[in-house]
Amino acid sequence: MGKSRLEAFSDGVIAILITILVLELKVPHGSALADLAPLLPVFLSYVLSFAYLAIYWNNHHHMLHTVQKVSGSILWANLHLLFWLSLVPFVTGWMGENHLAPVPTACYGAVLFCSAIAYYLLQLRIIAGQGHDSILRAAIGGDWKGKLSPGLYVVGIAGAFVSTTFAVALYAVVALIWIVPDRRIEKILASSGKREAS
Amino acid sequence: MGKSRLEAFSDGVIAILITILVLELKVPHGSALADLAPLLPVFLSYVLSFAYLAIYWNNHHHMLHTVQKVSGSILWANLHLLFWLSLVPFVTGWMGENHLAPVPTACYGAVLFCSAIAYYLLQLRIIAGQGHDSILRAAIGGDWKGKLSPGLYVVGIAGAFVSTTFAVALYAVVALIWIVPDRRIEKILASSGKREAS
Amino acid sequence: MGKSRLEAFSDGVIAILITILVLELKVPHGSALADLAPLLPVFLSYVLSFAYLAIYWNNHHHMLHTVQKVSGSILWANLHLLFWLSLVPFVTGWMGENHLAPVPTACYGAVLFCSAIAYYLLQLRIIAGQGHDSILRAAIGGDWKGKLSPGLYVVGIAGAFVSTTFAVALYAVVALIWIVPDRRIEKILASSGKREAS
Amino acid sequence: MGKSRLEAFSDGVIAILITILVLELKVPHGSALADLAPLLPVFLSYVLSFAYLAIYWNNHHHMLHTVQKVSGSILWANLHLLFWLSLVPFVTGWMGENHLAPVPTACYGAVLFCSAIAYYLLQLRIIAGQGHDSILRAAIGGDWKGKLSPGLYVVGIAGAFVSTTFAVALYAVVALIWIVPDRRIEKILASSGKREAS
Repeated sequence: MGKSRLEAFSDGVIAILITILVLELKVPHGSALADLAPLLPVFLSYVLSFAYLAIYWNNHHHMLHTVQKVSGSILWANLHLLFWLSLVPFVTGWMGENHLAPVPTACYGAVLFCSAIAYYLLQLRIIAGQGHDSILRAAIGGDWKGKLSPGLYVVGIAGAFVSTTFAVALYAVVALIWIVPDRRIEKILASSGKREAS
Repeated sequence: MGKSRLEAFSDGVIAILITILVLELKVPHGSALADLAPLLPVFLSYVLSFAYLAIYWNNHHHMLHTVQKVSGSILWANLHLLFWLSLVPFVTGWMGENHLAPVPTACYGAVLFCSAIAYYLLQLRIIAGQGHDSILRAAIGGDWKGKLSPGLYVVGIAGAFVSTTFAVALYAVVALIWIVPDRRIEKILASSGKREAS
Repeated sequence: MGKSRLEAFSDGVIAILITILVLELKVPHGSALADLAPLLPVFLSYVLSFAYLAIYWNNHHHMLHTVQKVSGSILWANLHLLFWLSLVPFVTGWMGENHLAPVPTACYGAVLFCSAIAYYLLQLRIIAGQGHDSILRAAIGGDWKGKLSPGLYVVGIAGAFVSTTFAVALYAVVALIWIVPDRRIEKILASSGKREAS
Repeated sequence: MGKSRLEAFSDGVIAILITILVLELKVPHGSALADLAPLLPVFLSYVLSFAYLAIYWNNHHHMLHTVQKVSGSILWANLHLLFWLSLVPFVTGWMGENHLAPVPTACYGAVLFCSAIAYYLLQLRIIAGQGHDSILRAAIGGDWKGKLSPGLYVVGIAGAFVSTTFAVALYAVVALIWIVPDRRIEKILASSGKREAS
């Protein structure tokens, strides 16, 4: 089974999620600039979630690049990831509308945490399918980003009950860590391409 | 006529339906964890429907893998299936918002029943188009899943007026039966590939 | 410029429109079967519009099959068609919620009329681009469907002020006329394929 | 890394945005023609935004035609463009519902301005990636459209506080300037194709 339809479906779902996010930005009733002010936390949540979904799409793109054969377990691990990502618009709206109240901010972090775990599981399934010479395993190496992020999310979830500003700042930091695309995969792919050619 | 555009369109519609589902999860007004409690039945309905649409996408994916030529009747049988699937978000929302009341729960089952019939009809059209040596017919064999499911839905629909918990549990059981992807098709495809190669 | 991205974009827009339609089916507040009754006209409008968008997708699919080169004017004629189709969910919702009142029913017909004209213009642009030996011109022949439909829509629009049941029945008749896919194009393509092969 | 998935994702997001726009056209409660009247500014905003998103899709289509290799910076420049385009439905709804009040009309222009800048940055990234013999740089030449548009948007934004009709008319003029597809790229591609062939 080829991977093109898996990519297309994932792209479709992520593209729709990233666009549905904007539906949480409800048009205000007044027409003054001040009427936009209460939307500011919603807008900031929107920007953060847009960045997160863009990062997931981007790295998903890179990760699937190393895949040749899609097994049933990869299909389901991928759907599991899409499930958690599909909850992002909901928690974004809840956090934004409540001006970053503690519980919604913690729930936002929990959805990010579950998405990170689901991404990790998908990565494991792909590596398992590639066997000993897994390109993906070579590419991610120690995978410090993948191991650090869930820890930071847990700190953010707990921290939300002390300071939501701290929690959201931490979520933003994790986004920044990831926003650099996974060049390791590009490098390994390039070098494995050279090896095959030589 | 190739099948790629049929796949792309079906993927698009199913990807949008699976994402529109999340719009039924209305952001609660309060910001406490208790404000999420009334959303629990909506959330469980969401998970169940997400699983169903994922299963349909998955098996649709496998089934179309055996198709080479798309006729007009396959196109319409496919649109008929998409029609019933498109009602899933509506009945999911209705069932969830009414905390699994009997009539919405029965209607939910009715939409699942009609989707199953539409899937079965699409399968018949594809087999008819493939003639005597139909790969798909060989692949599905006795098709016990396809024959058992509508019966279980009917039991669930009737049972909803006695116990909605029973009905929803039964729908979940059918989902679990299907969640194992249709390995038969993979096997037959693999062996028919070998036969051609030899 | 290839046509694959034009097809993909059109498929995307039509897939989203067909799915957005279902958002007009607002979940009722009660949980009895009687609570679905007021939704009946909305549901029937939904079925009709679903059929129309499916027909447009289907025939668009066939028509683009004859296209090799996409010019700027084809791109814009296609976007013009998508514009009118994008208004279908709006008029469907308006007609359904007002239980087929005269003005919304006439407006529904007007959007169908404009879509038909836009489809006709797109067809003209494609034929013009294909020059003398246009496959599409040969395929559509006298194009009695394309010429009859706008007339029937005009009758339906005027008739809506006398009897909306008559108008909606007429729209449904036009849908039935079109629901048979354009086998002429399939035939011509098949025979032109044979000619090339011989 | 190929560009097909980048194209598919961008097409998906733009197709969804263009369709989500129509959700701002809220179905009116009455069923008379007069009930449509208050929707007129919303409808005109809708037409203008539909045209803008269609133009962006169209020119994005042409621009990516010159790209062979997609780098990480192109991916992010593209996501940055999609971010600003994703705000179009929001400002369209705000401007339309307030009957073209000054602040929403200025904000509408601001989103157009940021989208234009993001498009320009994406263009720069692509040219930088193509090196000395950049096809895209040759194709856009002096790029008077790309340089004029942001200036006109700034005039429109300032002008919105004097006359919103003037501002919206100016936005429409910029749309008309762009609605002619970028034939320069088609020409250069055609001639570079010839050069390679000879």
